[in-house]
Amino acid sequence: MNDLLSIAAFNARYAQAIDSDALETWPAFFTEDCHYRITHVENEQDGLAAGIVYADSRAMLEDRIAALREANIYERQRYRHLLGLPLVTAQDGATTTASTPFLVVRIMATGQSEVFATGVYNDRFVREGDGLLLAERVAVCDSTVTDTLMALPL
Amino acid sequence: MNDLLSIAAFNARYAQAIDSDALETWPAFFTEDCHYRITHVENEQDGLAAGIVYADSRAMLEDRIAALREANIYERQRYRHLLGLPLVTAQDGATTTASTPFLVVRIMATGQSEVFATGVYNDRFVREGDGLLLAERVAVCDSTVTDTLMALPL
Amino acid sequence: MNDLLSIAAFNARYAQAIDSDALETWPAFFTEDCHYRITHVENEQDGLAAGIVYADSRAMLEDRIAALREANIYERQRYRHLLGLPLVTAQDGATTTASTPFLVVRIMATGQSEVFATGVYNDRFVREGDGLLLAERVAVCDSTVTDTLMALPL
Repeated sequence: MNDLLSIAAFNARYAQAIDSDALETWPAFFTEDCHYRITHVENEQDGLAAGIVYADSRAMLEDRIAALREANIYERQRYRHLLGLPLVTAQDGATTTASTPFLVVRIMATGQSEVFATGVYNDRFVREGDGLLLAERVAVCDSTVTDTLMALPL
Repeated sequence: MNDLLSIAAFNARYAQAIDSDALETWPAFFTEDCHYRITHVENEQDGLAAGIVYADSRAMLEDRIAALREANIYERQRYRHLLGLPLVTAQDGATTTASTPFLVVRIMATGQSEVFATGVYNDRFVREGDGLLLAERVAVCDSTVTDTLMALPL
Repeated sequence: MNDLLSIAAFNARYAQAIDSDALETWPAFFTEDCHYRITHVENEQDGLAAGIVYADSRAMLEDRIAALREANIYERQRYRHLLGLPLVTAQDGATTTASTPFLVVRIMATGQSEVFATGVYNDRFVREGDGLLLAERVAVCDSTVTDTLMALPL
């Protein structure tokens, strides 16, 4: 159960970083040569790797955040992540794979709240020192029409 | 706290089975002579046992899944369960009763996501071998008008 | 991890008390000289302490519940809390501070369910005897226009 709790605590910090607008801390949840992708369930089943958002290094995640800040069009929306418990699917030495369901509510400046995206994180964690880092996070959205192209990270 | 985590991990697997369309694995979360029911809060308070959906064996759950597959009208909708932590209410030998809040989002083929049902699972778990099985799960919906008659399991 | 689980279990009981309409048990989750506040993210960032709802004793919480029961306008709505895992931010002797994301769905008599509020609890827990009590809970809503003035507790 140790891994389950460590991953759940990691995910709580991850969600809080995004939802409290501490976006600059978000890339540090990943390894330097990480793989991060947002896709949807049909693309994933068809093996289409490109996804809606794609990055294969921590530097690309940092670029993404910089672009969001420059575009400056997100000051008026917020996200709130609600995460389920991780389902640990495999463990091998310092590597653990897990799946975690997510629900993201988007809160607009008008006060309207709506379910923006649901899905599952398919993750590969590696242990580095005392903590965990994401070597891979694939956010598989349940809906095929979620517009996450220019939005906050999931 | 051991039971709490075991039940939470069980529930994560249960939700994933439904939400990833592995419906044929769903009956195996229950004992052979299980009791499964979907009802709503007013019927439950009035002691009306029938509920919206009713099964008193694992075989009936298997029949239900077979019927869903034959009807084939669910290919174009998905569920996403978000579950709270279980509240362990009693423990006696190999039996543990617990209540767990749920929220189910329904994702339609159009891409629209909506809160489909909320409520609480009132459960009785039994320990069999290394794992847990549901001897009873009563899904008590908060709303009295949720149409779950012909839908995916909660 | 012990604190994380204790707080998560506390929060599960807290949510269940409200969502099962056992409102009279709600003040007992707090210390006698507690601080309870509902506010939103912009007020909180600006350091406006007043908030939407404000109480600085358990007696005030009891008064609030009594008023809700007398007003009797809430019999036809229910809440369902979905809570994330707590993020333990500090621990000092018998005191633990933590942040926990929440999502509250409101279920109207018509059967309509909507995301009523999302946000984060910023909490200070104290250990008393075998259990925990809230010395402070500030429910910071993500939306600036949530109408919680006369509603159930968050």
